Amino acid sequence: MPSEEAPTRPRGRARRDGRHRVRAMHPAATPFITRAIPPYEMLDDEQLVQVETHADRILQEVGMEIRGDETALRLWEAAGAEIEGASKVRVPIGLARQIVKRSAPSEFIQHARNPARSVRIGGNATVFAPAYGSPFVSDAESGRRYGTMEDFRNFVKLAYMSPWLHHSGGTICEPTDLPVNKRHLDMLHAHMTLSDKPFMGSVTTAARAADSIEMCRLLFGAAYVDKHCVILGNVNVNSPLVLDGEASRVIRTYAAANQAPVCVPFILGGAMGPVTTAGGLAQCFAEALFCIALAQLERPGSPAILGNFLSSMSLKRGAPTFGTPEPPLAYFAIGQLARRLGVPLRCGGNLCASKLPDAQAAYESASSLWPAFMAGANFVLHAAGWLEGGLVMSYEKFVMDAEQCGAFHVIARGLILDDNGFAMDAFQEVGPGSHFLGSAHTMRNYETAFFDFELSDNNSFEQWSQEGARDIVWRANQKWKAQLEAYQPPSLDEARNESLIAYIAERKASMPDMNY
Amino acid sequence: MPSEEAPTRPRGRARRDGRHRVRAMHPAATPFITRAIPPYEMLDDEQLVQVETHADRILQEVGMEIRGDETALRLWEAAGAEIEGASKVRVPIGLARQIVKRSAPSEFIQHARNPARSVRIGGNATVFAPAYGSPFVSDAESGRRYGTMEDFRNFVKLAYMSPWLHHSGGTICEPTDLPVNKRHLDMLHAHMTLSDKPFMGSVTTAARAADSIEMCRLLFGAAYVDKHCVILGNVNVNSPLVLDGEASRVIRTYAAANQAPVCVPFILGGAMGPVTTAGGLAQCFAEALFCIALAQLERPGSPAILGNFLSSMSLKRGAPTFGTPEPPLAYFAIGQLARRLGVPLRCGGNLCASKLPDAQAAYESASSLWPAFMAGANFVLHAAGWLEGGLVMSYEKFVMDAEQCGAFHVIARGLILDDNGFAMDAFQEVGPGSHFLGSAHTMRNYETAFFDFELSDNNSFEQWSQEGARDIVWRANQKWKAQLEAYQPPSLDEARNESLIAYIAERKASMPDMNY
Repeated sequence: MPSEEAPTRPRGRARRDGRHRVRAMHPAATPFITRAIPPYEMLDDEQLVQVETHADRILQEVGMEIRGDETALRLWEAAGAEIEGASKVRVPIGLARQIVKRSAPSEFIQHARNPARSVRIGGNATVFAPAYGSPFVSDAESGRRYGTMEDFRNFVKLAYMSPWLHHSGGTICEPTDLPVNKRHLDMLHAHMTLSDKPFMGSVTTAARAADSIEMCRLLFGAAYVDKHCVILGNVNVNSPLVLDGEASRVIRTYAAANQAPVCVPFILGGAMGPVTTAGGLAQCFAEALFCIALAQLERPGSPAILGNFLSSMSLKRGAPTFGTPEPPLAYFAIGQLARRLGVPLRCGGNLCASKLPDAQAAYESASSLWPAFMAGANFVLHAAGWLEGGLVMSYEKFVMDAEQCGAFHVIARGLILDDNGFAMDAFQEVGPGSHFLGSAHTMRNYETAFFDFELSDNNSFEQWSQEGARDIVWRANQKWKAQLEAYQPPSLDEARNESLIAYIAERKASMPDMNY
Repeated sequence: MPSEEAPTRPRGRARRDGRHRVRAMHPAATPFITRAIPPYEMLDDEQLVQVETHADRILQEVGMEIRGDETALRLWEAAGAEIEGASKVRVPIGLARQIVKRSAPSEFIQHARNPARSVRIGGNATVFAPAYGSPFVSDAESGRRYGTMEDFRNFVKLAYMSPWLHHSGGTICEPTDLPVNKRHLDMLHAHMTLSDKPFMGSVTTAARAADSIEMCRLLFGAAYVDKHCVILGNVNVNSPLVLDGEASRVIRTYAAANQAPVCVPFILGGAMGPVTTAGGLAQCFAEALFCIALAQLERPGSPAILGNFLSSMSLKRGAPTFGTPEPPLAYFAIGQLARRLGVPLRCGGNLCASKLPDAQAAYESASSLWPAFMAGANFVLHAAGWLEGGLVMSYEKFVMDAEQCGAFHVIARGLILDDNGFAMDAFQEVGPGSHFLGSAHTMRNYETAFFDFELSDNNSFEQWSQEGARDIVWRANQKWKAQLEAYQPPSLDEARNESLIAYIAERKASMPDMNY
């Protein structure tokens, strides 16, 4: 790991704005959440075995298809699966779980170029990452529009500056002003230079996945990358039960380089899976298990994450819905299944269907983030910015969501049951009928006692009215603009950056612009 | 229980609007939630004993005061507590818990005048009740204003029509156009006539509590009331550690009549309790325990509910805050403590500090309701309508919150792990790479498969834009107005209503109007 990365310091204009404000805007010391409280255990062992058994039956009786990756089929065949026709893989009962249990790590470190920001993925750690993949962006003033590379850079900066987001994410929004076959190079470069948090690479083709890893070798050193996880790739299954050859090669490309694929069945109940939650759950577990097993067959011991993306559907309108009660039940169960299997779990974060960052968006988001956290999710993608079923990355929702992630840092700590926590001295001092405002215990603790949402207005109605009777979206708009104003990049070794720039130039010159 | 109460039928204008719409607006068949999933267990037994021990120490070493209720002091003295001076009660370690464990029921039925709407309180049941006690009301068109008796009646109607609220609540908003010493009579009459769901009575003085119970005797019959719980009274402790004589007499009045006091410490951390959550938790448990024990000393075996209202504070602004991460930790713990003690638990519901039903309100509310539900709350007060720290009852937020309560009906059912749930026939039918839209399994299940928020817009951006680009508040405004339009009162025996009206007239004539 390069050691020249100094901690970020305030400087230039930011310093003139006052030290306090700049300090408050810099990332918190804790690079990820360590949960001191247990996850929620909804199902008993017998019920968990039932789900595992049905997942096994799906893999054997129905089978998965790998369409166009002969190597992957041969790996499965060698492992004991039955290959049928050109693409069908029937996995004997229990085999996929055996392969995964044998070699997949239950937790691993994803290293950041700034070692202080490396994250632990798995066990009792939780990592929050921004939303991923939206073609559109929006803000309160300009409305909804196609995302650009400038938007992409802005969101990387905002994620870097948030003390509550631990990860820079991946395709934080689509830079639609760049050609599809080259934009991954600019996206990676933005993550590597504008932030020093860990990040994700391209998954749209195996060649772009290879580019992503190659750029990591330039940033971290090739020998380092072979031994340490420095990049994740978020791979969607073509649910139901198909892994196309490109996705399969992307999984193998990450695994071969000892990097971590995030294996994500993408299931809208009633379309890519059954309408009943138990069925969607068993399918999701089966598909993710199949992908992680493939990664282990490619390179035993390489890191991987069990993902899930389960959404319900409005059966009146045929549209995907979020914040509904079915996905939380699946989250709780799959958290338990992931722990039994011994692999890290990815869940979705602040998901919503709303077109605006209104109360619909917030109810829906909280009803996704709460169960994800309680399920023991280790890697929470889409933790900030997601709007309109993932079609839009919203500047205002980004900073609003990030603060909600902040609150879970406190919940994760649990109750502090020590003498100071129980405050017997305060009760003795204050006694019945008085108040604790000036007590020694309050004076000793008040600065760190309570989490305070910066974007929440708790003033009196009169004061709030005098100040313009603003809603939270107005305050969020002020906040993200102030943050981008105050942004200062983390330092980066010039030689490494030049090698990245040279690589990008060479790759871009090697092919014509294409929009697929 | 009177048996003449027929199930509510659509009629009059509502019928002309179309049967389907009216049917959809009528209360669901299930009168309360039965949780098939376990509550969240955050603390281990040793930690729970630590909290109990500190609560015991508070009751013994610091003591509670009962200010101005000699009978209550004598009850405690006879039970073995030490009375010091005119008001201090020191309770020997373990005594309060012994008293409660000896006779308080772990669950009970609160009977409604329509037996189909009676609720179970305790165990694995959860009951949602509207917000309580706001002096102001607001709606999107008229803004914020003092509440009136007309507003009160409107909210009783809306709670009656919601399939997701099981309870009519109590002081659903303050009817500030009526004299303080008489308004409880009109409030009770509204609950009794405009709804047939269970309700709460007055707690502002012991005489008004007695009026509330007397009206129940007229509605249900005196002998019935002595044997069955038909009314709750929500009593706040004057935290820290004081029970004023009026509150103490109100608790005893409900208990003596075999009705259920809800015993609620009201603690803003840093003001009425310490700033550390463990201390606030131990205090809350001690105070609630003390009140339930008093109810048991008054009438052993009478029903009671262990309440808690713990809020954090913005230490920048000195204002109470909601949706913050500290109260959830207290909720989880007090849920476990209530189960160990063997009494039903009350938690707050959709609490928030926001002045508007915006994303702040929704994030904060969901971050109160989620932990309340996961904690295993049996009676969730403030489940709908609460705005601005409880100062405002909002028409729009009322219907928005009620729908959120709806989702928890599905979560409570848990995963259905049967053959239909696992849908193996669907996987066999559909196979890899196809879709489930027309499968036999989907056809069989789609009507009941997913919870669909009526107030959420899941349409395409284009359709939503064409329809006016409305936020959820606009849709909520349409909804509550349509509901009030369609409202039809449940039937009520005329003779009983006349006896209620006569009682109210007599009581009103017996005293001058007063505003305290």
